[in-house]
Amino acid sequence: MISVRGKEAKRFGELSLAQQMQRLCARQDHLLEEGESETDSVTETMRCISCKEEYVTSDAGTCKECYEEASETEEELKREIEDLKAKVNFLRFWSPTDHRHDLSGRSHGPGFTDVVLVAAEDGLFGGPSMPVPAHKAILANRSPVFKAMLENEMEESRSGTIKISDVSYDALRAFVNYFYSAEACVDEQMACELLVLAEKYQVKHLKAYCEKFLVSKLNWDNSIINYAFAHQHNAKLLLEASLSLIMDNMDKLRKRQEYAELVEKHPSLVVEILEACLAKQENTAAPKDASAKS
Amino acid sequence: MISVRGKEAKRFGELSLAQQMQRLCARQDHLLEEGESETDSVTETMRCISCKEEYVTSDAGTCKECYEEASETEEELKREIEDLKAKVNFLRFWSPTDHRHDLSGRSHGPGFTDVVLVAAEDGLFGGPSMPVPAHKAILANRSPVFKAMLENEMEESRSGTIKISDVSYDALRAFVNYFYSAEACVDEQMACELLVLAEKYQVKHLKAYCEKFLVSKLNWDNSIINYAFAHQHNAKLLLEASLSLIMDNMDKLRKRQEYAELVEKHPSLVVEILEACLAKQENTAAPKDASAKS
Repeated sequence: MISVRGKEAKRFGELSLAQQMQRLCARQDHLLEEGESETDSVTETMRCISCKEEYVTSDAGTCKECYEEASETEEELKREIEDLKAKVNFLRFWSPTDHRHDLSGRSHGPGFTDVVLVAAEDGLFGGPSMPVPAHKAILANRSPVFKAMLENEMEESRSGTIKISDVSYDALRAFVNYFYSAEACVDEQMACELLVLAEKYQVKHLKAYCEKFLVSKLNWDNSIINYAFAHQHNAKLLLEASLSLIMDNMDKLRKRQEYAELVEKHPSLVVEILEACLAKQENTAAPKDASAKS
Repeated sequence: MISVRGKEAKRFGELSLAQQMQRLCARQDHLLEEGESETDSVTETMRCISCKEEYVTSDAGTCKECYEEASETEEELKREIEDLKAKVNFLRFWSPTDHRHDLSGRSHGPGFTDVVLVAAEDGLFGGPSMPVPAHKAILANRSPVFKAMLENEMEESRSGTIKISDVSYDALRAFVNYFYSAEACVDEQMACELLVLAEKYQVKHLKAYCEKFLVSKLNWDNSIINYAFAHQHNAKLLLEASLSLIMDNMDKLRKRQEYAELVEKHPSLVVEILEACLAKQENTAAPKDASAKS
């Protein structure tokens, strides 16, 4: 059965078999060439509206409408950020620690402070520490512990002096500053000191701030010490991040000096680490076993 | 010349002419069919990664890489917003106006307020207005006018009472609340009252807040009154928005009662409106003239 189409079939009938062959072959060559050029169009490209580069189907992102919607969303988010930043700037204070005070801590002129905090380091550095002036209203607003202390006419409220134990002057100053600015310039040592204060006085925002900072500084060298610290001060985010890092390097763990110290001083922590590792091993092993059986 | 390719040429040599014809025709049909389906691929579509719909070249948005970058940016912006919102919540206060006070305004127990503000409405509603308690530190931090007043041991600082003239108790309370929360629940009347206070006591953030609100409520009916109000209180954003609305409807302006009143009471404002309209007409007319000449 020879299959040809429409008018062509008529014309073919008038030609010799050889002529027909010749024509068919020429046609076939043409079709093959066309086919090749059309095959190129399968890998047709479109131009990216953002980077202006051509892309192929497998690299397709979004249609124009979705791109425009996403751009609008981005603009809206940026405007919201500007509004929020302006709000933060409005609500932020100059801190009274930026004013000059005499040793009594009472401000002369500006500040209107009505309380001072004193770092009681048990004479760690010798001599009395400089008092840090503040406002009862601010302390009570940021910390439920200070609130209870100041509103209930305790010794601190009557005397106008709050003693804070086991803290350096610098950390206390940074602690009070944070109440006014929601910001702190910290290194790892300071972040740890502030986290302890934030935990003790229930300043959640500062605690989260310190935890985030410490997580950003996590590495294999400080993972065990951070894990122990996080455990001691109920810092969940830091605890999870350091445990995860430890578990990824369990094979190296037992060779470390800190591990031996941890086993001796806080065996319960080591138990927790090992239990977490076992649980992880069981979880990752389970699918393998299942596939091995099937 | 019969043109066939590679191995096919060999095989063709072994077939009768009729068989060759038959094969060539079958092959040609196949190529034609392929060609047809490939012709469709010229108007090829790609699938949008966001809405999952197919799109054609003219509706192309972004490539995958740019889409993924944009998604990451959006996630980052959202995280920044969450951080800023947490910061605002931390810096925000419970306002002392939420506590109960006696008529002296001094709080009993909580609040630690050290100053009261009193709406001196010149007996507009008769009787003394309730005092609004506050903290000198907050007032001085949010307003340079209060700062100068309180730090310079003026009458207000000594007495601990600040009289605010020409304001309702509700507006004064909302004004003080804003110092603590950076938020206000306003209607147009309240926004105007707060804008006047914000202008007088140089609370820029509140002034911008009120202007934005009034601009959102602008319409042809209130455009003239808002324009006059914005002019009086140096509210640039509101001034521009209301002037723009007035200029878009100049033909209707002169028929309005407010226009006649404005001409009589504030002719200089009307001069400004008319001058702005003239300038706009000249600007829009210029390109037309230019094209008419060319």
